[in-house]
Amino acid sequence: MSISRIAIAGSTGYSGQELLKLLKRHSTFKVARLIGREDTLENIEKEVDLAFLCTPNETSLELAPKLLAKGIHVVDVSGAFRLKKHEYKEWYGFEHSSKAWLEKSEYALHPWLKPKAATKGEARLIANPGCYPTATLLGILPLLKHQLIEENSLVIDAKSGTSGAGKKAEAHLMFTELFGEYLPYKVGRHQHWPEIVEACAQFTQTQINPCFTTSLLPVERGISAAIYASWNSKFLSLSKDERLARLKKAFSDCYEGCPDIRFGHEAELLSLKKVCHSNAAHIHLTEAFGKIAIFSSIDNLVRGAAGQALLNANLLAGLSAQEGLQS
Amino acid sequence: MSISRIAIAGSTGYSGQELLKLLKRHSTFKVARLIGREDTLENIEKEVDLAFLCTPNETSLELAPKLLAKGIHVVDVSGAFRLKKHEYKEWYGFEHSSKAWLEKSEYALHPWLKPKAATKGEARLIANPGCYPTATLLGILPLLKHQLIEENSLVIDAKSGTSGAGKKAEAHLMFTELFGEYLPYKVGRHQHWPEIVEACAQFTQTQINPCFTTSLLPVERGISAAIYASWNSKFLSLSKDERLARLKKAFSDCYEGCPDIRFGHEAELLSLKKVCHSNAAHIHLTEAFGKIAIFSSIDNLVRGAAGQALLNANLLAGLSAQEGLQS
Amino acid sequence: MSISRIAIAGSTGYSGQELLKLLKRHSTFKVARLIGREDTLENIEKEVDLAFLCTPNETSLELAPKLLAKGIHVVDVSGAFRLKKHEYKEWYGFEHSSKAWLEKSEYALHPWLKPKAATKGEARLIANPGCYPTATLLGILPLLKHQLIEENSLVIDAKSGTSGAGKKAEAHLMFTELFGEYLPYKVGRHQHWPEIVEACAQFTQTQINPCFTTSLLPVERGISAAIYASWNSKFLSLSKDERLARLKKAFSDCYEGCPDIRFGHEAELLSLKKVCHSNAAHIHLTEAFGKIAIFSSIDNLVRGAAGQALLNANLLAGLSAQEGLQS
Amino acid sequence: MSISRIAIAGSTGYSGQELLKLLKRHSTFKVARLIGREDTLENIEKEVDLAFLCTPNETSLELAPKLLAKGIHVVDVSGAFRLKKHEYKEWYGFEHSSKAWLEKSEYALHPWLKPKAATKGEARLIANPGCYPTATLLGILPLLKHQLIEENSLVIDAKSGTSGAGKKAEAHLMFTELFGEYLPYKVGRHQHWPEIVEACAQFTQTQINPCFTTSLLPVERGISAAIYASWNSKFLSLSKDERLARLKKAFSDCYEGCPDIRFGHEAELLSLKKVCHSNAAHIHLTEAFGKIAIFSSIDNLVRGAAGQALLNANLLAGLSAQEGLQS
Repeated sequence: MSISRIAIAGSTGYSGQELLKLLKRHSTFKVARLIGREDTLENIEKEVDLAFLCTPNETSLELAPKLLAKGIHVVDVSGAFRLKKHEYKEWYGFEHSSKAWLEKSEYALHPWLKPKAATKGEARLIANPGCYPTATLLGILPLLKHQLIEENSLVIDAKSGTSGAGKKAEAHLMFTELFGEYLPYKVGRHQHWPEIVEACAQFTQTQINPCFTTSLLPVERGISAAIYASWNSKFLSLSKDERLARLKKAFSDCYEGCPDIRFGHEAELLSLKKVCHSNAAHIHLTEAFGKIAIFSSIDNLVRGAAGQALLNANLLAGLSAQEGLQS
Repeated sequence: MSISRIAIAGSTGYSGQELLKLLKRHSTFKVARLIGREDTLENIEKEVDLAFLCTPNETSLELAPKLLAKGIHVVDVSGAFRLKKHEYKEWYGFEHSSKAWLEKSEYALHPWLKPKAATKGEARLIANPGCYPTATLLGILPLLKHQLIEENSLVIDAKSGTSGAGKKAEAHLMFTELFGEYLPYKVGRHQHWPEIVEACAQFTQTQINPCFTTSLLPVERGISAAIYASWNSKFLSLSKDERLARLKKAFSDCYEGCPDIRFGHEAELLSLKKVCHSNAAHIHLTEAFGKIAIFSSIDNLVRGAAGQALLNANLLAGLSAQEGLQS
Repeated sequence: MSISRIAIAGSTGYSGQELLKLLKRHSTFKVARLIGREDTLENIEKEVDLAFLCTPNETSLELAPKLLAKGIHVVDVSGAFRLKKHEYKEWYGFEHSSKAWLEKSEYALHPWLKPKAATKGEARLIANPGCYPTATLLGILPLLKHQLIEENSLVIDAKSGTSGAGKKAEAHLMFTELFGEYLPYKVGRHQHWPEIVEACAQFTQTQINPCFTTSLLPVERGISAAIYASWNSKFLSLSKDERLARLKKAFSDCYEGCPDIRFGHEAELLSLKKVCHSNAAHIHLTEAFGKIAIFSSIDNLVRGAAGQALLNANLLAGLSAQEGLQS
Repeated sequence: MSISRIAIAGSTGYSGQELLKLLKRHSTFKVARLIGREDTLENIEKEVDLAFLCTPNETSLELAPKLLAKGIHVVDVSGAFRLKKHEYKEWYGFEHSSKAWLEKSEYALHPWLKPKAATKGEARLIANPGCYPTATLLGILPLLKHQLIEENSLVIDAKSGTSGAGKKAEAHLMFTELFGEYLPYKVGRHQHWPEIVEACAQFTQTQINPCFTTSLLPVERGISAAIYASWNSKFLSLSKDERLARLKKAFSDCYEGCPDIRFGHEAELLSLKKVCHSNAAHIHLTEAFGKIAIFSSIDNLVRGAAGQALLNANLLAGLSAQEGLQS
């Protein structure tokens, strides 16, 4: 009945490898099966309670319904089950072939949505949030919930280490090409934009249309998202210190009790490196020349993928959220 | 009479070294003297027509008036003579001791201000623009001149390679610290903010108050400035293509005939690396989710320091602007 | 009586930080005190059973005798108590002020010397091996013990990440200087040479005089030591395959039962990155154009410092060697 | 009659790009044609005097004979025409299809072989030396010529930046894989070994069998080759200073008058970075613990490819060797 026997698809990719590392220290979950490309999934339901899909979007789209039909819970690290209102054709380039499951999927951005523990007889599908959306949403949801900003002023300039692009050999991701480089890409058309928009609607009932850009950093891992917005005009009469206090209070309200989310005005929260190899999110809060300026940092492979997937699986299994994750 | 005998102060620093490299290929300028710390400047006017100051702010502040008093033209690469309306005490931490020369200094951002050739009997002081301001201003001045944007929506997220911090050993700039790092710093208080504000007023008669942040990239050289702004509302009725055409036209208008400034919608203009080791500025123009998104890239040591200094010295000497600089 | 209360001196340095991270997961050791610069050590014997010194050589030299006099066991990560036959003045630049303790110190290179568990009433001083010697000795001691090589043919070309140089700000260790660099240094005069020579005498009763050079790699962490030697002439009549089998057998003999030492002919053992952030040593064994070519890799901060220190402290405390260290 | 009209095959690769950059500043050579994959070479002899082949080995092997047959001089940057005594099948994996031209090719390692100026009616084929062999041979040929070493003691530990592997997308050369990495590869089987062996025989009439290994450095460009050897026993009675003087004299004898080869005992000659983006070779000469230790550094794309190719083409054209190359 309990969830402990684990399968992983995509275990040789970067997020799959990271997940394997985390599971080595987990008290309850045991890796029972690595799902390979040629796997027929025959009798997998006899060995496995929950599967992590660390696979490309199209592979997840194909695998998840098969596993769910066998009663296996699925935590999908890909983007295949995240967008409920935007078209997959437009943003991902393929038609979605499993709309029933798409509708039922739970977009589990911790702590904004904490999956309930699974009950008997019901296979559940967790859509694990994307790496850029995780860093971005952790920074903007408190602003929206507490109506601190003019929503149409939102600008997000997000940067990622190269492991976010996955392990496939591509010419523009070669060491020689990226050494000494900084490279904006997919400007105005990144598939994480609709994900951010939908999550803001889901968690704060606000409809936003942010300017959102993504760039490659010449580092292996980590996302640093800079978030800029104008203050809601009603705060302009306050002193800067009062405004910063409001800002901090909004984050306290949202993240109190989250051991791996740190926020505040301290300079050390600006460092990308300090969150790497951990499930931490660091959110630096300040004002720059009259506008809100927030820097939100996570490790794309941990908090932005495997670590958050483990958080979600823990909750599904009725365990402590932090099990197997250091805080 | 003509300007050809050159002195350099600060020749062992990064911009000084870059300048020496450029001068090796120059048709007319010859390095006549390297000004060291203990130099008394005695009789320097007999050997030198023009001095480049690649020195810290305080050193330039002390050296420039002495050289000018001897009739030597000065191109100052530091920030000592750039701010005419903001307080040095507030932004640089020292009182300015040479207000008369500060008033006369020419903030020569090519091509927005091209110094006239020097005439007899008048020593001139060129304040060479800072590295962040150069990248930023090349991207925003056409927007302001052509009234394309809502001015109070401007957000600038600028990143720099580490050579911008100079050669002094500081703990946070060690290789071990910055390997794998991305680090916002001086948020809300960078001394290049007032420089940008003043230059916009000088060149486009607009008073702006941009949100401007600066971050360290783990690369040796290069600045990539992301510039975001809302469209002036009068363009919102146009199609996206029409707006982009307006955008490009504004840049054509400003930079036609500048062989080292490239702008447009091509993806290769997004790369930081492509401008390194050259005096080029690459400016990528596009729209992202309804807002203008411009990425402006330069080499901080060349276009952002030594290269632009040479452009200015060339003009002062009555030479072709590009002399000694490849296009 | 038992050893569990721990002090750390130098806890803000790179190896100190690494040690703190390891101790967080340790079952038995609890950090009872961080010894700072101004610490008088008063009554420290009431709080502390064992102290790790992650301090510069001179600091360790001063601290260790004081702590030992109070009955506290010391694991010294510095080089202050390693050389018994070579002059400190020549190799470290200072006179050794504590020769009695120097004589008693145990050079505990795991698994070549495993400290015995401490018994009542005797404070012990462990000299933790240096980072280069650890990588190097793990690769050459089996060769010497099994008389596989001509001893005077030994060449060691060892490379290290920059964290090996410590946290002090020095001009040649700045990010800007080392980006894109590879830099041999201290050629012919590195203080780890006599340490290697003495350890070979201690563990294999051989007197060697290896050519040993050290270079900086532009990475944060890791040591890769290339070891070259001519075969002992008696093996030249064997086939290459037979020789390689002998080579592997020598390593099996020495390292069987060491869960964190991997050796063999597999290509993945060549990678420096794979040992980083772990206490592993990977030793690739092969022959190149007739000579033995061995590549030995460790993380300088873990196996080369904090991890090995913890191994040694575990043994001193009568615990399992691997306690708190993943294998 | 004179050589001035240039073709380049492989102009989009790293060495091709570097060559194009160099040719922009050349007084005499003009790029008349870029040879693409589908090029039929029809009438190319009417447009072109000399072709640089910056192509993979197999492409050069196919192209060179066709161009030579049309009377066009060829400087081949690939390895297709370098090995005269070793089997291509064994070292390159293909049968050589053009043995007549292989026999006639000139292995032009500057300054050890300086091609004579071309005379009428004879198309010439220059085999441009490989990157590792260039760095290595510049360091060992003076040792051999002056009989300073025991030949069978030679060990060469050579490291290269990643651009040496070319532009093709391969999984192990991705940025994510090589960030923080150091990676020995092709140990005992690199195709540059027979090239080094043959060149030593050709230029110094010595038959050597060096231990030679190659490793990837996490930098874009540059080769640093460490060369170790035992002194010829007849020098062991000399003082170290006397030996070092002999060493330096051997290099003076070989490289006097080469403006781009620097050698000596100065620490700055150890830096890889200082030779990058130039045609320089820096050779640091010293002794480490009784053995000769030489560090030879070049930029693999300039001195190790395009720069040396230009040297050779200049000589073929009867121009000054350094034309178009800064010294």
